[in-house]
Amino acid sequence: MEPLTVIKVGGKIVEESDSLNDLLNKFSTINGAKALVHGGGRSATKIASQLGIESTMVNGRRITDEAMLQVVTMVYGGLVNKGIVAGLQARGMNALGLTGADLSVIKSDKRPVKDIDYGFVGDVKEVDDKMLANLIQLGILPVMAPLSYSKEYGLLNTNADTIAAETAKALSKHYETTLVYCFEKKGVLFDENDDNSVIPTITPDLFEQYKAEGIIQGGMIPKLENAFDALHAGVKEVIITQAADLGTNQGTKVVLA
Amino acid sequence: MEPLTVIKVGGKIVEESDSLNDLLNKFSTINGAKALVHGGGRSATKIASQLGIESTMVNGRRITDEAMLQVVTMVYGGLVNKGIVAGLQARGMNALGLTGADLSVIKSDKRPVKDIDYGFVGDVKEVDDKMLANLIQLGILPVMAPLSYSKEYGLLNTNADTIAAETAKALSKHYETTLVYCFEKKGVLFDENDDNSVIPTITPDLFEQYKAEGIIQGGMIPKLENAFDALHAGVKEVIITQAADLGTNQGTKVVLA
Repeated sequence: MEPLTVIKVGGKIVEESDSLNDLLNKFSTINGAKALVHGGGRSATKIASQLGIESTMVNGRRITDEAMLQVVTMVYGGLVNKGIVAGLQARGMNALGLTGADLSVIKSDKRPVKDIDYGFVGDVKEVDDKMLANLIQLGILPVMAPLSYSKEYGLLNTNADTIAAETAKALSKHYETTLVYCFEKKGVLFDENDDNSVIPTITPDLFEQYKAEGIIQGGMIPKLENAFDALHAGVKEVIITQAADLGTNQGTKVVLA
Repeated sequence: MEPLTVIKVGGKIVEESDSLNDLLNKFSTINGAKALVHGGGRSATKIASQLGIESTMVNGRRITDEAMLQVVTMVYGGLVNKGIVAGLQARGMNALGLTGADLSVIKSDKRPVKDIDYGFVGDVKEVDDKMLANLIQLGILPVMAPLSYSKEYGLLNTNADTIAAETAKALSKHYETTLVYCFEKKGVLFDENDDNSVIPTITPDLFEQYKAEGIIQGGMIPKLENAFDALHAGVKEVIITQAADLGTNQGTKVVLA
C-alpha cells in the first residue's frame, strides 16, 4: 500500500497567519498522499464572545447550543477551513475543504445526554473511506473541519483529534497510514519543564510504565489511549510533535511494538 | 448532451430556515444533474453588524475590506454553504460545498481600483469546467458559495449572480445547461405592482422594446444583460423565477430566439 499522512493541527497554529504560513510551508514538504484536519477552538471562542455568546467548556469539551453551533459552523467550516484551503492552493496543493456533511464523509450520532448535555456534539459513527480514498487518488488533498454530520440533526460539533483518528483509521484500509498530531510541544516530554526532553518512542509497555511513574499524566493519557486505539485499528504509526518539526523525523513515535 | 440546471438562490431564501426548507424540497424535485449557487448578503450584513463591522454598499456591491472578507468567508463559506449542504444531504442529494478556492474551481483577479476601491472583490477569470463536470458525473451536487480564488490574494468576495452565470457558461461545454435565477418575484413583470404580470419570454428584440417602453428598468437591465451574455456563451436557456416555482414551468424565459 502507498503511504499516507493524516495531520491534525490544533487551534493556535492555524489561527494566526504567521504560524499558519509556517505550517503550510512545512506541510508542503511532506511527500506522498496527505490529509489535513484542523481545529479552531480559540477563534470560535473569540468570535462567539464578540457576538455576545458565552463559551462553556466541560472536561475540555465545548457545550454546543444552537447559537454556538452556528458559530463553529462559521468558524471551523468557513473562516479556518477556507483560509487553509486557499493557503494550500497558493502552494500548489489541490486542497478541498470538507465538513462531515460534504459528500457526507463523516457521519455521527448526536452524543447521548448522560451527566452532561453537550448539545449539538457528534460522536463519529462512520467515515466514508472509499470517497476519501477516491479523492486522494485524484490528487485532491482533503482539509477537514471538526464538524460531523447526522441525518437527523445536520452538522454536529466534533473533536478534531477524533476526526483525525477516525479518518486515519478509515484510510488505513487503503493506505499505509501515519497519523501526526501537531501541538505546542516538541513531543511527549519526560519532564514538562524541559522542552527538549522528548520521549522518542512509546510502546504499550512503556506507556504503562510512564503512567505508573507519573511521567505521563493528565490530558496526555487520553491522547495516547486514542493513539493506541488508532494503531489497533490499522494505523501504522502515530507521531506527536510540533508543527515546526513537520516533515522531519522529530517528535514522539507511538507504536505497538 | 445531458441536461444540467444551475440554480442561483438569493440571500433571503437561504437565510431563513422555513424558506430554505421549502427551497430544498423544491430543488430535490428537479430532474437531472444540477448545481446550486447561493448568496448570503443579509446574513453577512447582520453578523458584521453584530461584530461591530459596518457594511458599505456601492451600486449594490459590498465594499470588502479585510474584516469584511473574514465575515463573508465565515458566512458564505461556512454558515450558509454548510447549512445548505447538510439540508441537501438529509434529502438524499450528495452535496459538496465549494468556494472558488476549493479545488481552485473559480479563479479570479482582484477587481482593479478605478473610481471605487471595492477591496477584496474578485472578477471571475476562469471556471474549472472539467473538474466540475467530473464531480457532477460522479453524482456529486456542487453547492457554490459566492467566493472566488486568486493565487495572489486568496479568497475574494464575488457576486453570486456572476458565479452562477460563469459556472453555467463553463458547464455548457459539457451539458445542455439551463441557468435559473430565483428571486422574490414570480419572474420579470410587465407591471411591478402586479405580481402576476409575468413576462413569459424575453428575446433580444423584446428586451430592447421593453426597455424603450420603460417596462424593464433599473436593476433588471444588468440582470438581463448578464442572461443574454450567458446565452451567447452557450447556455441554452435562462429562467428568472421565484423559489416557490422551482421545478415547474413558471417564470420568465430568456432566450436568444
